Amino acid sequence: MRQEFESTLLENCVTEISRLPGIGRKTALRLALHLLRQDPGAANALGNAIIEMRRGITYCRVCHNISETELCPVCADQRRDASTICVVETVKDVMILENTGQYGGLYHVLGGVISPMDGVSPDQLQIDSLVARVAAGGVKEVILALGATMEGDTTGYYIFRKLAPYPDVTVTQLARGVALGNEIEYTDELTLGRSLQNRTLFADSIKA
Amino acid sequence: MRQEFESTLLENCVTEISRLPGIGRKTALRLALHLLRQDPGAANALGNAIIEMRRGITYCRVCHNISETELCPVCADQRRDASTICVVETVKDVMILENTGQYGGLYHVLGGVISPMDGVSPDQLQIDSLVARVAAGGVKEVILALGATMEGDTTGYYIFRKLAPYPDVTVTQLARGVALGNEIEYTDELTLGRSLQNRTLFADSIKA
Repeated sequence: MRQEFESTLLENCVTEISRLPGIGRKTALRLALHLLRQDPGAANALGNAIIEMRRGITYCRVCHNISETELCPVCADQRRDASTICVVETVKDVMILENTGQYGGLYHVLGGVISPMDGVSPDQLQIDSLVARVAAGGVKEVILALGATMEGDTTGYYIFRKLAPYPDVTVTQLARGVALGNEIEYTDELTLGRSLQNRTLFADSIKA
Repeated sequence: MRQEFESTLLENCVTEISRLPGIGRKTALRLALHLLRQDPGAANALGNAIIEMRRGITYCRVCHNISETELCPVCADQRRDASTICVVETVKDVMILENTGQYGGLYHVLGGVISPMDGVSPDQLQIDSLVARVAAGGVKEVILALGATMEGDTTGYYIFRKLAPYPDVTVTQLARGVALGNEIEYTDELTLGRSLQNRTLFADSIKA
């Protein structure tokens, strides 16, 4: 049921808003009408924020994280440990890991994971540039912080093989196990099995 | 959990998007990152569509529907029946009624319904301007197309009383009853009771 609008300006705005993922024409219309009820300043602020963000933000030439400069703030920060690279799927993963406050190394954003089902092959990801960073020397550890999914595992294994020519570089991955706050009863068997295999010294958890 | 972003442009964009109703910061971030992955043209088109819509659309000085001109296309259309005014709550209701293709009169958008609970009093709605339209003469029927809710009924009654000084004007309301396609079994008792009281001649339904 496609609604026709009397106003082409409204029509155009609804069409553009409904191009956003997860937003249909009904929601787009609701949002457009909301903006019409607000101060003109509100719509201008939103429109300009979108345009200026897209104009001003680019991707870091080293780690492919979003950045307002050629080198992102993480890569440009001399205090960060340049010998450790944490490999993530998306820009959002960088934000999430930064918010933990637990990581002082650099990042490498792949831009996705290998997924033949979705037509994503290794050459569409930033894997060659990761290998080039490692080949340039100075890297001691590559941490794979990919999803605990088949695609994440496949991508991890692919990168692991690609980094085989650099035996001095340790490839690690995020610990997998029972999520903090979760009951054993509600943890799936695969995770439990893995947690048993990779059990850690209780004394270590007291120190941490 | 408020995320901090490295980029103020992204921060600003996420803040503006999350001002929209029903969109939180997580969704706003997802939408902003989506726009960053697209062509710059996509973000510009969206931003400009929003700004231009707000700049170009105003409210019709007669019926308060949205319009790109002083008089909306419905009010300006000489072929429409100016003796009938359909009173609706919102601009969206006008669109919905227009889409039925069943109505050839004019509209009057109240901008809401009387709701003491939400702090909406009659003087915040376009009721005086409706009475003024009727007072100006030439109106034969005012159709109340308000929601079948307590607020809708209250507003309808308030308008009915306000129009009492004009006995030549018939005030009607949308028929209420079993919605088309609905089973009797799943229709609420209030609606069923009303449908019984206001039963219509079967012969009339065959004609329509």
